[in-house]
Amino acid sequence: MSAPVEFYFDFSSPYGYFAACGIDALAAKHSREVSWRPILLGVVFKTTGGKPLPELPLKGDYARIDMHRCARQAGIPFKLPAKFPIAAQVPSRAVYWAETQGPRRARQLGLALYRALFAEGRDISDPEVAADVAAAQGLSRQAALAALNDPAIKDRLRQETENAMKKGVFGSPYFIADGEPFWGADRMEQLDRWLATGGW
Amino acid sequence: MSAPVEFYFDFSSPYGYFAACGIDALAAKHSREVSWRPILLGVVFKTTGGKPLPELPLKGDYARIDMHRCARQAGIPFKLPAKFPIAAQVPSRAVYWAETQGPRRARQLGLALYRALFAEGRDISDPEVAADVAAAQGLSRQAALAALNDPAIKDRLRQETENAMKKGVFGSPYFIADGEPFWGADRMEQLDRWLATGGW
Repeated sequence: MSAPVEFYFDFSSPYGYFAACGIDALAAKHSREVSWRPILLGVVFKTTGGKPLPELPLKGDYARIDMHRCARQAGIPFKLPAKFPIAAQVPSRAVYWAETQGPRRARQLGLALYRALFAEGRDISDPEVAADVAAAQGLSRQAALAALNDPAIKDRLRQETENAMKKGVFGSPYFIADGEPFWGADRMEQLDRWLATGGW
Repeated sequence: MSAPVEFYFDFSSPYGYFAACGIDALAAKHSREVSWRPILLGVVFKTTGGKPLPELPLKGDYARIDMHRCARQAGIPFKLPAKFPIAAQVPSRAVYWAETQGPRRARQLGLALYRALFAEGRDISDPEVAADVAAAQGLSRQAALAALNDPAIKDRLRQETENAMKKGVFGSPYFIADGEPFWGADRMEQLDRWLATGGW
């Protein structure tokens, strides 16, 4: 099996959620696994001068129309949560903690957290909520809560965000497959073709 | 026949060029015409705080990869011109002048100018070059040159840019169909479905 597809995302990103709903199945078609890499876009934006979509004049208003239309098109349950955007530290750390129990655990928890936020409107930036989601995935609630304050896990998230920036990641979702970068849920079709053909 | 699809674009935008290559055929499938509306994104960016893609850290580098990949995927001849980005006043004015001879003339000249820039690497910000392109489309070279300095045509471009902003246009390409906005060549599939179904 070839190297995993790197999947970078911020838990506050609706488009990251849309990607999360399909990326594992897409990669599996090409016998690839996916390495789920939550990052903090706020940190990246300090370097790139980027801003969260809702804050951008005109573009923010458009994005609200577009994200709902994209969800309807893809048949993905989606609602902007009452609290939005959220601080993504807690769910991101939870995923890196789950990864210590295997990459499959990280993928499952990542998707479950995204669904809790964007399909169920739950505030996954609350450690208790994130731990509930972990428990529902068969992980230890207590261990999850402890991990959220583990300096090694906190540091891991900082390092992953730093590494992502070094690789050129500036948005969410962002994929890297065999060195080729793809930004946006709307580039998954190209990613699919790239994995099928090895580039064109 | 229903109202035309509004197609806003900046002549310096490669993604606007990709859209230009397909939008008339897309609309024709649904018995729609397309109203070609060149605008000056630089003016829009003064309001929105947007910046030209090449100037954005990380995103600019990615865009260069993405635009070439999109062109290859769509089978569109594409090369970044030696002089890029260009000032879009001259080709934009030429299109509004051509429109005074009918919307079909505007569409034909718009596409011809885009091709001259992105397929042939010609500097369409040069009035002589723009006039050559117009002449090759069967328009009067002399009249084209005169129109580029016509205060009424200059004012038309300013007005169209202003109107576009009022409608929420912040990027290129940008489509409005029956009031529904679509941003990006990568939303033409959704636009196609919208025109087919009247929304979903």
